[in-house]
This record gives sequence, structure tokens and C-alpha cells, in this order.
Amino acid sequence: MQTLDKTQAKFAQLAAHLREVNDIESASSLLHWDQSTYMPPKGASARGRQLATLKQISHEKFTDPKIGELLEDLRFYEQTLPYDSTAASLIRIARRDYDRAARVPATFMSALCRHQADCYEAWAAARAANNFAAVEPYLEKTLELSRQYADFFPGYEHIADPLIDRSDYGMKVSLLRPLFAKLRQELVPIVEAITSQPPADDSCLHQDFPESQQLEFTRKVVERMGYDFQRGRQDTTLHPFMTNFSIDDVRITTRVYEDHLDQALFSSIHEAGHALYELGNSPEFEGTLLAGGVSSGVHESQSRLWENLVGRSRGFWECFYPQLQGVFLRQLGHVSTDAFYRAINKVSRSLIRTDADEVTYNLHVAIRFDLELAMVEGKLAVRDLPEAWNERYRTDLGVVPATDSEGAMQDVHWYVGTIGGMFQGYTLGNLMSAQFYETAVKLNPEIPVEIEQGNFTVLHDWLKQNIYQHGRKYTAVELLDRVTGSPLSIDPFIRYIRHKYGEFYVI
Amino acid sequence: MQTLDKTQAKFAQLAAHLREVNDIESASSLLHWDQSTYMPPKGASARGRQLATLKQISHEKFTDPKIGELLEDLRFYEQTLPYDSTAASLIRIARRDYDRAARVPATFMSALCRHQADCYEAWAAARAANNFAAVEPYLEKTLELSRQYADFFPGYEHIADPLIDRSDYGMKVSLLRPLFAKLRQELVPIVEAITSQPPADDSCLHQDFPESQQLEFTRKVVERMGYDFQRGRQDTTLHPFMTNFSIDDVRITTRVYEDHLDQALFSSIHEAGHALYELGNSPEFEGTLLAGGVSSGVHESQSRLWENLVGRSRGFWECFYPQLQGVFLRQLGHVSTDAFYRAINKVSRSLIRTDADEVTYNLHVAIRFDLELAMVEGKLAVRDLPEAWNERYRTDLGVVPATDSEGAMQDVHWYVGTIGGMFQGYTLGNLMSAQFYETAVKLNPEIPVEIEQGNFTVLHDWLKQNIYQHGRKYTAVELLDRVTGSPLSIDPFIRYIRHKYGEFYVI
Repeated sequence: MQTLDKTQAKFAQLAAHLREVNDIESASSLLHWDQSTYMPPKGASARGRQLATLKQISHEKFTDPKIGELLEDLRFYEQTLPYDSTAASLIRIARRDYDRAARVPATFMSALCRHQADCYEAWAAARAANNFAAVEPYLEKTLELSRQYADFFPGYEHIADPLIDRSDYGMKVSLLRPLFAKLRQELVPIVEAITSQPPADDSCLHQDFPESQQLEFTRKVVERMGYDFQRGRQDTTLHPFMTNFSIDDVRITTRVYEDHLDQALFSSIHEAGHALYELGNSPEFEGTLLAGGVSSGVHESQSRLWENLVGRSRGFWECFYPQLQGVFLRQLGHVSTDAFYRAINKVSRSLIRTDADEVTYNLHVAIRFDLELAMVEGKLAVRDLPEAWNERYRTDLGVVPATDSEGAMQDVHWYVGTIGGMFQGYTLGNLMSAQFYETAVKLNPEIPVEIEQGNFTVLHDWLKQNIYQHGRKYTAVELLDRVTGSPLSIDPFIRYIRHKYGEFYVI
Repeated sequence: MQTLDKTQAKFAQLAAHLREVNDIESASSLLHWDQSTYMPPKGASARGRQLATLKQISHEKFTDPKIGELLEDLRFYEQTLPYDSTAASLIRIARRDYDRAARVPATFMSALCRHQADCYEAWAAARAANNFAAVEPYLEKTLELSRQYADFFPGYEHIADPLIDRSDYGMKVSLLRPLFAKLRQELVPIVEAITSQPPADDSCLHQDFPESQQLEFTRKVVERMGYDFQRGRQDTTLHPFMTNFSIDDVRITTRVYEDHLDQALFSSIHEAGHALYELGNSPEFEGTLLAGGVSSGVHESQSRLWENLVGRSRGFWECFYPQLQGVFLRQLGHVSTDAFYRAINKVSRSLIRTDADEVTYNLHVAIRFDLELAMVEGKLAVRDLPEAWNERYRTDLGVVPATDSEGAMQDVHWYVGTIGGMFQGYTLGNLMSAQFYETAVKLNPEIPVEIEQGNFTVLHDWLKQNIYQHGRKYTAVELLDRVTGSPLSIDPFIRYIRHKYGEFYVI
């Protein structure tokens, strides 16, 4: 009995210590949110310093050897508990996060952070000036630091695995490379087929749609999806994101283009998808390491499921399009549901990942994934990146960037992160969104019918039950297996694309 | 040389340690700001926990014995520096704050905090139900804790002095009690004289003034005062306040009543007055203990100077009233400048401190000041507070609250703070606002003329030069002496009131 008491006291100590770290990180998140929404321009400099201070304190507190000792002392206790009990899961996830954080020296992390800040500045200037040479030395250093990071995890199978682990724990190059290769093999011909047929007309989306009306409509849509404005809010920002400060305060942001109706609409549905995930965590996870989403890929699977499989489906607009027409009668009164549906699902060969449709999107990601692997493996030199980039765009998408700004300097990721591990989550998200949704509909065939009525209850409940409530408890691999009974596969996604686009195109 | 190097290294260590504490406190301030402006309702519970965590961390870091050692080691260095040098001032203010924080055990502070939270809840319920008995035991405990707090500072002259020191360092009962007595002696007959003459008509303020137009106008007014929206912003909230997250991010809030034009207007000018103070701190104080305002009283002197001596002056409205009429032509087109000026300066015997005009306001404060002293001295029992309250309102203001909710339970202060030290700052602020302004105008007779032109440059520069830039460097007593050459006095305030109201009333 005394031993059990002692053990429980240690568990309570661990939980208290972790909660302190959680609270500091929630504060940081609020500082970030404010920075992107309401902060006056001149507040930026002190804000950067404050964020760095909070980060250092939370890192120090989280890598305190005391946590390591508690985790050691709780090893036996953990083994006596069911794997998926809250206590065992908390210890397991804490150990995983702690081991990772403790392996990387604080001095390295702060050097990396400083370099990332410098690199970001250099990138912003170089991109504006279309001068890749200016950013090359920074990218070289990022590459060097990325390799050094990997070396803190000796025994890896592939040098990119520890980098991938940071956001998609357990995903490995040996699994992902063949998956991307197969996906590319499937998608390139589909894109070729679709884009050789007459394109959809999306001019109806590019009229004049006043901001306030767009925001009011998207608010109604996300509310219908189940986003609770008692536990969140929506603000405007430059680059839309979701963030949370607790299980009961999960906020979304969007941006509105008055001549681009789909921006605010689909970015709102996307971010609300992320938010529903976190809002649906088991309440007992509040303030613990179990709150949140499994991984970058699983999180993205939830935003993309709502954005694309639901939000760009015909059934969804059977319900919402008449309402949208009611708001924008002058602009859309003469546009049929079918024409609108085709407009929001227009497929085109394009240069910019973030603007890409769901058919071509994963080709953009595959290019980046392959190129970052090649760089971290030492097979592609940084100076040769632009050429390799352009070549792959030519072969895969049939378009070539006119400048490196729309080419190898397009995305911020490599310039504020590592090289390796930065892009796989997007495609994992798309693949898993189809895999999860296919299962949901198989088990609940009424889902598509309900969606046509603007009712998301069965789908939302199923997602809560099977995915949301578990927070970070399972790994992506475990979750996929539990929920779909299958390992990660490209098949459901390809089936979804073929079925949906097969309606309009010969593919 | 080596010794100096060592000393400077210690000073740098102290500064770094204090900056860390500062950054945590800035984060807390942002969490508070968000809580009062944008936080969704259900975010409250986790937010409370996060604020408690940050408070504990900053308290631990600030009371770290390491800081005490550094302060000891720097004692000689401090004495070699000019008193008003930045370094000497930083060491001096840090020592003062540290000594105070270190004397009070962390366990006591957290017990006090917990009690304050409970007491607040009890008060909110008791006030709603007009049930003073329900809050009595809580107030008894607050009184007990307030006395215990004072006892951590043995050697005090009066038991309330350590409580007053918390917000108005250096102010003592021996100075304040005669001051309040004299003020009461002067004001009671003035109020009697004014209120026995025909009252001003303020019905022009109580029409329908749409929120957005009110906000737009107040924005223009505070901008003209010199409030910089690049370094701040204004949002709406329930109880207006000013807060800052750095010297370059000082925000104000207001509330708008559509049938009460003076609310948003004067609360905005008031909060902008607080903000100008902090925005005017010397830039080198950013992130240090020298940033901010001297004391509760001096801070309030700046908000009241702008709100009353400037914002409720005839000259101010000579300039702004035509603009206000332009915005609210239907409502104010037929109201003369003189009628408007009299309306915003209406004097009446009232029950509620926060709604009181500038003539009666200090009587409200004096009542509270005397009653809290009597309680902490043990001369007034908590259960007798309502009766004592009502009796003083009868004698001083000639009105008696019908309920304790508008009486002894009116203000939140005693129910979330201590008993003793909670109210003096308001009156100190009013007195000092007149004392500072009289000096400013004596030295710069063009100030009132400039104000008539909506130009605040000379006044604002004088305040920056003499008050704002110094932040917390001097005590209130030192600052008054430096700036006005006199000790704290009620005379400038009484002269101001007699002069201003002598225009309309025989007093």
C-alpha cells in the first residue's frame, strides 16, 4: 500500500510538473495568436523577446532531470496499467516527448532557433528580390544543422527519420518513400487526363464579395459543422491558422479576399476541422500532454476531411448553396449549384502549392518531400535545388516556374525549420482523410444523406468517438489500425479522386 | 578593473534575471487583457489556472535568493553611481520590490490569493442578493489576512502603512489622514452650496448615440491627445482599463453606452491618459522594473489630468464640440457648447463612486479610506460596516443607500484585495493632477490656448519631460518635489474646483 501511495504521489508530481509546462506553452500560444491578429505593429520587438523567454523557461522546466527521474520511477507502474488508460498514456507520451527534448542540448536548440530567425529574414528578402543565391548559405547551414539534429538520435534507419519524427512520430522514410512514389505514379496520369479536357469555369468565384458578408456566412457554416463559439472565436489574419489555449478555448483565423470567394470559405472550414479535433478531446485531457492531435498528418487529415471530403462535396452545397445565393444574390443568383460545385473543384496545373486543388496538391508535396530527402542524404546540393525543383515541376505538373520565388523559395518551411520532415504531413493528411472518411461512411451510410441536409451529427459524433476524444493517446499507425483496420494506404484517396472527378472527366 | 568587471557582470546578471520576470509578467498581462476582451466564455476556467501558474513562476523567480545576493553585492556599486542614474535606480527599485516580496512567505501569498478568489465569488452573489451577512465571514477573513500581511513589516508607524505601500509607496496614514480630513472639510460645504442651486441639465448626453460613431470619435480624440495606434489599440470591455505588454504596446479599453455619451468618451480619455504615461517612459526602461508609473496615485494623476483638467475643460470643447456635433448632428445640433460643457460637468449628490462627478468624487473616496482604516485598526467591526457606511453617506453626501449593494458592497476592492490601502490612490491622483497641471500652466501659460486649438504638444511634452520619461525612478514624494517644488497639497485641487465651478455657482 505504501508503495502504491508513493507511486501515486510521484505520478501526481509528474502531472503537476507537466501542467506547469503546459500552462507556459498555452501562454506562448496566446502571445503568438495576438501577434498574428491584434498586436500593434511596434509591439513586435518586445513580443519576440517575450516568446523567447517563455520558450526557454518551458524548455528548462520540461527537460529538468527531475522529470526524467519521475519517468524512470514510474516505469513499473506504467506497465501495471492498461496501455490505453489515461495514466499509462500520459506517462508514455511524456516519456516520448521528454526523451526527444532531453537528447537535444539546449545550446543546440537555441543555436537552431537563432539560425532559423536569421534564415527567415534572409528568405523574405531573397524571395522578394528573386535572389536564390542570397539565401543559399543560410540553407546550407540549415541542412548542416538538420543533419546534426538527426545525429542526436543514433540508430535511425534513415537520416530524415528523426526529423520526420518531430511532427509525424513513427513515420519513416522506408514507409513514406514508396507511398509517395506510388501516389505520384497514380496522380500524374490523372492530372494529365483531366487537364487535357475542357477546364471548369470558376469565374463565378471571382466577383465582388464584401468581407463582412463572407465572414457572416462562414461563421454560420462552421457553427453548423459543430464549432462552438462559446469555446472559440474566429479572427482575421494574414496566414490562417488554428490555435488553442485550453480544451475550451480553441480559436480559428481566416483571411478574406473580396474577389476570391473560396479563400475565406474553405480556409474557415479547414481551420474549423482542426479545431473540432481539439475541442473533441476527452475533457480529462485538459492541460495535459494528451490534449491535442496525434501528429501533423492526423491533424491535417481532420482539416482536409472537413474542407475537401465534406466541404467540397456536392451534398454539402445542396444544402448550403441556396443560403450562399441568398447572401450573394446579385453575384450568384444566376449560377447553378452544379456550376458552383464545378468551380470550387476546378483542377489545374499550377505553380503554387497553397492554391492547388485536391487532385494536384499531393504532387506539389511529393516534389518537396523527394527534394528534401535528396538534400539531407547529400545527393542534391543546395545550389542545385532550383534546377531540380523546376525539372520536377516540368515532369510532374507540366509547368515551370519563371522565377525561384515561385519555385524553390515559394514555401517558408525550409527557411524556418529543418530540411527533412517538413512536408510529409500534408500528404499524410490527405491520404488519411480519405481513409477515415471511407470507413466512417461504410459504417454509417447515412452520413452523405445527412450532409445534404446540413446535418453533421453522425459524422461529427463518429469522429469524436474514434479520433478526437483520444487526443495524443495513440500513434498515427495505431489510430489508423484501430479506426480503419488497415495500415496507411493511398487506395481510399485514389478511389475518392477517381470517383469524384470521374463524374466530369474521362480518367 | 577586475572588480569593476565583476560588478558589471553581476549587474548584467541581475538585469537578465529581472527581465525574465518582466517577460513572464507581460505574458500574464496579455492573458488578462484577452480575458477581458476576446476570450470565449468557456475559456475562463483554464485561463484562471494559467494565470496562477505564471504568477507562481514569476514570484518564485523574483524571490529567488540569488536576486537578494546580487542586490547585496551591488550595494557598494549603487552608492558610487548618481542617485538618478538608470543603473542606480534599477538597483534601488529592484531592492525595494524584492524586499517587499521576500518578506511575505509564498504560502501566505497563495492563501491570500485563494481567499480573494473565494471572497470575490461570495461578494458577487451577495451583492446580487443584497445580502451583506453572506459576505461578512469572508470580509472578516480578509481583515485578518490584511493585518497578518502588515505584520510581515514590523516597525510600521500605522498598521495600514504596509498595505498602502503596496500601491502608493511611501504614503503614510500620518500624512493621509489629515489630508483627507481637510479635504472633507473643504468639499462638504462646496457640495452643499452647489447642490442647493439649480442643477445642470445633462439630458443632451442621454439620447441615442450609435456605438460605432462613438468609437470613431473617441479614437480621433485620443489620437489628437498623442496616443499612438502604432504602439497601442483600443478595444471594448466591461470595466475599462489600460494595460501594457511593453513600452511599445500599451493598450486601452472602453465601454460604450448608446444612451450615455460621456461613458466611452471620458473613459477613453482617462485610459489614454494612463497610456500616454507608459508610452512616454524612457525607451531604455523597456523590459525593466523602471518601466511603468510611480504609484497608483501618480498613475491616476495622469489619467485624471487628461480626463478632467483637460477633457472636461471649456477650452477642450471649444475645439472638439463642433466636431462632435458634426458626428451627432441630429442629437446635438441644437445644443450649445455652453450647455454641453455644463452637462459634462454636472454635480450631484450620488451613491455610486464610479459615476461621481469631480467635485463629489473625493468624498466617496474619503468615506472608504476612513472606514478601511477604522476596520484595520479594530475600531469598526465588519458587521457594523453597512451602518457606518450609510451614516457617512448621510452626513457627507446627504444621500443614503437603500441597499447594501449600493452601499458597503458597491466596490469590488475590499472583496478582491486587502482592507486598508485600497482607495487612497484615487484621491491622491485627483490632488496631484491639479498640482501638476497648475505647475505646467504656470510654467507654460500657452497650454490652455493650445488646448482650445486641439493642440496638446506643449502639455504632452512637459508631462513627458517631467513625469512620463522617469517611469518608476522617483517616489511620488520625490516626483512632486522635483516637478512642483511643493509637498502634496489639497490647495491646487480646491483652487481648481472653486475657480471652475465658481463660474456657475455661488460657492
